This record gives sequence, structure tokens and C-alpha cells, in this order.
Amino acid sequence: MKVSALGEFRLIDLLAKMISDSQNKGAASYQKLIIGIGDDAAAWRGDATTQLLTTDSLFQDVHFRLSTTPWYELGWKSLAVNLSDIAAMGGVPMYAVVALALPPDTEVDDVRALYQGMIELAQRFEVAIVGGDTCQAPLVSITITVLGSVKGKDGRMLTRSAARVGEKIVVTGALGAAAAGMEMLDKRLRFDAESSGQLRRAFLQPEPRVLEGQALAKLGVRAAIDISDGLIADLKHVCDLSCVGARVEVDRIPIAPAVRAHFGERALELATGGGEDYELLFTASGQVIDRVKAALSCPVTTIGEIVADEPGNIVMVDAHGEPVSPAKTGWEHFIT
Amino acid sequence: MKVSALGEFRLIDLLAKMISDSQNKGAASYQKLIIGIGDDAAAWRGDATTQLLTTDSLFQDVHFRLSTTPWYELGWKSLAVNLSDIAAMGGVPMYAVVALALPPDTEVDDVRALYQGMIELAQRFEVAIVGGDTCQAPLVSITITVLGSVKGKDGRMLTRSAARVGEKIVVTGALGAAAAGMEMLDKRLRFDAESSGQLRRAFLQPEPRVLEGQALAKLGVRAAIDISDGLIADLKHVCDLSCVGARVEVDRIPIAPAVRAHFGERALELATGGGEDYELLFTASGQVIDRVKAALSCPVTTIGEIVADEPGNIVMVDAHGEPVSPAKTGWEHFIT
Repeated sequence: MKVSALGEFRLIDLLAKMISDSQNKGAASYQKLIIGIGDDAAAWRGDATTQLLTTDSLFQDVHFRLSTTPWYELGWKSLAVNLSDIAAMGGVPMYAVVALALPPDTEVDDVRALYQGMIELAQRFEVAIVGGDTCQAPLVSITITVLGSVKGKDGRMLTRSAARVGEKIVVTGALGAAAAGMEMLDKRLRFDAESSGQLRRAFLQPEPRVLEGQALAKLGVRAAIDISDGLIADLKHVCDLSCVGARVEVDRIPIAPAVRAHFGERALELATGGGEDYELLFTASGQVIDRVKAALSCPVTTIGEIVADEPGNIVMVDAHGEPVSPAKTGWEHFIT
Repeated sequence: MKVSALGEFRLIDLLAKMISDSQNKGAASYQKLIIGIGDDAAAWRGDATTQLLTTDSLFQDVHFRLSTTPWYELGWKSLAVNLSDIAAMGGVPMYAVVALALPPDTEVDDVRALYQGMIELAQRFEVAIVGGDTCQAPLVSITITVLGSVKGKDGRMLTRSAARVGEKIVVTGALGAAAAGMEMLDKRLRFDAESSGQLRRAFLQPEPRVLEGQALAKLGVRAAIDISDGLIADLKHVCDLSCVGARVEVDRIPIAPAVRAHFGERALELATGGGEDYELLFTASGQVIDRVKAALSCPVTTIGEIVADEPGNIVMVDAHGEPVSPAKTGWEHFIT
């Protein structure tokens, strides 16, 4: 069977099972392990902190095109997607290593710009870039691995498996702008300067919700994920791992204004299935959500609730409670 | 300027300088940092241990060809090259994350074999594979990041910058077999079964010197590197960072028997410049070397000494002390 027929998520499940079957539970590494494969980052007990590790790649012509992605933004985004995973655990990002593949005819100034983008984002969150690997290759790829931490040996962190029935489903910010930005760049669509600036930034220079993730963990939130695959696909990850179902009121989904203005009927599809927004989705009680709203300066929108249903089942309803079929519920890399 | 004109090592220097210039020395991450870019792994003070982080990629048609590399060995090697970096710091590897790019028409059984190779090596050293990232791409690439540790907050570790004038230069094992193995596979050379088995294993399934690295650190060795770029290139890294020169007696370089038997006059060149042997090169006093020889079961060979010379200058001499010009002193990815 080809990996394209299996699909990305089932491939990950297969590999996770192989690894899980092979673990030596007596080894020190496994004894300290809290979370292995399957969440936004791995976690284990350090001496005084809980440590987090996550890795993510951007591959030319898969995640970006050089024709539409300036090198500075490429560097920014390649770190941002990793910081977003640490944010989704409620952690503090600390150290990063960068594995870089470059065609030999790459301009050194372009590599410099790539690192400049990476460095500016690293500086903002006081992340130290401490190493890496460079190699020649026919295509550009950047794989960054970030180590982070959560205070305390059994630190309060955000996981995909902690959603409980009765909790509300909440998202930060607005959705759909990254997918709309990618489409705008690919198809050379032209909008007003403000809209196109917003869409462009959303796709090329996402802002990882690092401080927001830390605040959520502190304020009592337990379950979260970052929206990278798409709202519904990521909510499904949470529901699968928490063994719960979800009910989403589509009219409450916060769609980015520029998407609503320029993408007409497709706006909802971009917001639910587009992915790469790097906002946080979390679940919490009404009381905790009130605390979160008071503490965060970004929009915080309740879009539905966790229900007792078949694990992973997501029902989308309109304002009248009538079922809505999502046109698209996320994208999988290997399903072609 | 193109990166091919700059060369891999100068590109790394440039990027390291950008990062160094940008550091915020007040940030917690930098305050705890012991070693950043430039050694085999990064190191920082944890709460009770020194932590190590390293990343390395294998890229299709750059580091391996699918026509000559079975998937099991590819998985093994992609982890081995990282464990070798932890070994070169004298550390204990603990956790690994795997970023995998695969063409959609890859057979799932091949991915399974890839992970099987990785898992078997991970089990041997009790490394927990705790996460990763998979994506579709036109070429196969595997980037693994390994976190390791050294006991103690200011743990005794092996660095590239600790070589001192008067110390002997020592290597574990024998050299040249990996490069000879690559050539044998690429050119479909045929040797006796024993030789071809040895060369094949050396290239496809190298044994990282993890326990040996830990023993070196414990026995008082301070400077080491793993031989990935090639004996002379890696010795030069040590000399550059330690601000010393080196004198190598070429006749003492331990050449793998199968290389000596089948590669005639090119045997020395393969041993000095071929790379990818993943043996350890270290420097130490005669007394420490005696202790190392008594403790390790692998060959330990003195090949020269650290001298007061222009930093990074390496002089190769024959048995009579006459200078020898190395045909090839290593390979740089970007110099085409």
C-alpha cells in the first residue's frame, strides 16, 4: 500500500504504534515520559520542570513556493509553526535547532534574510538558536526543533486529551486568513491594501500565541491544540484523544474580516478547513473562559461545546440547531 | 554570492555570527547556555543535569540513494548520525523527534522498515522516540533531533574547543570503511563476502560510539568530535575551536582492513577524507589514553599530537617526519 492511500493521520498512527510497541518501560527516558507521540509536543519530567520537545518542517513546493514566499517570512514562519506547538502546550520556548537544506545556487543574501526572519521571532520570545545542520539539496527545506518547558515537575500543561464533556469550545483570534492569503498569493488575487496586507501576513508571518498559551495553562485551561491542520481537523484531534464528541455552531466561528469581505460563500470553508492560522483552540468551563477573556487582549470566541458522543464525532449546526455539512474539514498531506 | 561559492563551513560561520550578534544575554535561555552553535551538540545547564540538543538530516540523492540504501538501514543511520553527535559530547541520548518527508507513492511497508531500523537502534541505547512531523514531498528526507544529558549541572563533557598543546590525538576504531562502502555500492564493486559485508555495514549501519563517548568523559578526556566530515576536516574543526595546530603521522592512521585490501593507494585518502565513519577523535595526555585503552574494548590509536601552531593548521608527516600532502582533506557540501 502507498502512503497516499493510507493518509497522513493513519500513517502517524501506524508509526506511533510501532514505537509504542517497542518501548522499554524500564528505561529512564520512558519512566520520565509524560506525553509521547500524538500531542503538539512531547513532554517529560525534568528535574524541576516539565520539558517539551517539538519538530516541524517546511518543504519547498509543499508548504511554500519561493515565487510567493520571501525568505525573511520563510524563516519567520518556519520557527513560528514550532513556537505555536509549544504555545499549544502552554509552555515557554527556550532552545531551537535548525536543519536546513538548500540548493547550491541559493543566494547567500537569501539565506541571511531567512535567518533574519527566524532570529527576529526568536528574539521576541527569548528563544536561543543553539545549533543546526546544513546540507545541499535540490529543494529548500527547513526543519526546526524547539525545546520548551513548563514550570514544575508535573507542570500544568495543555494537552489534546484533556477535553471534558460539558466544556465550551473556544478559539483565539479569527480564522481563515492564512488559507485565504495562500490562495491570494498563488492566484495573484488583488484586494485593497489593508485586506491583502492582513491575508499576506496571516499566511507568511503568523504570530504564534505563545504568551496566550502560557496564560491559558495558568488560568486553569487543560485542553488545547494549535490550529494548523484546520479548525475541524484539529478539533477532531482533541475529540479523538479525549474520547468525546463536539457540537460546533458554525455561525459563531470567528471568520477574519478580510476573508469574509473577499471570499463570499467560501469564507466559512476557509475558516473551518483552511488551516495554518496558528490560533489556539481550547476547551474550558464558562468560569474559566470568563477569566481568560479578562486576561487576554486577543479575541476569544466560544464556538460550541464538548458533548458525550462517539469519540471524535463532530456535529456542525446552524443558529437554529440544524445540522450543517462542512464543505471541507481539513486537509491531509498524503491524500492526493 | 551563491552558497556554493561560499562553502558549507563559511555559511555556518555566517549564520552563527548572525545568531550570536542577535542574542539577548539577559534571556534565561542564554544565561543557562554553555555551548551554542559550532560543537557536535548544543549544551545548557538544566536543573540537575547538563542538557544536549543536536539535529541532523539525511536527504535523498545527497546523503543516500534509494537504489543502494534499504529502508531499514536508512532509519538506522538517520538516528545513528545523531547519536554519534551526542556520543561526541560524552552524553547519554534520551529523546528523539523525527521529521519525515516522503513522496506519496512510497510504500507503507518501506516506511515501516525505516522505523524498524530507527527503533532497533533507539532500543539499544534506551532512547525514546517521542514525536515528529510527516509531510509529503518529492524526495525523501529524514531530520532527527536528539536530546541528551550529561550528569551534573556543569557536567564533564567533551567539546571541540578543549584540545591543549602537548596532548596526543587519538581515534577509536578504523577509518575509511564508510566512504569505501559508499563507493562499492555506487559503483557496484564486488569483493569477498566478508569485506563487502564490513564496508556495507560501515556505510549503511554505522555504530555510534555512545558508550565509548561516555567513558571518555568519565576517564578525563575533555576534547572530542565524531568523524562525520572526515578525519582531517574534523580534526581541523577541533584545532580551529581550540586555537591549536596538529601534527598527524599518516602511517599511524588506522585504516579499515577491507579498505586497505581493496582500495590500494586510495586507502589513505578514504581514511583521511572520506568521512561518515562516526568514530570518535579525541585528544588527551598519555596517562589518560592508557586509562582509555584499558577501559574500552574497541581499538584506540594515537595518530599524532596537538602542537602550538597557527590555529587550525594541520601538518601531515610520514614515518620519517617528512611532510605529506593529503590528496583530499574532507568534503564540503556546498563546494561543487
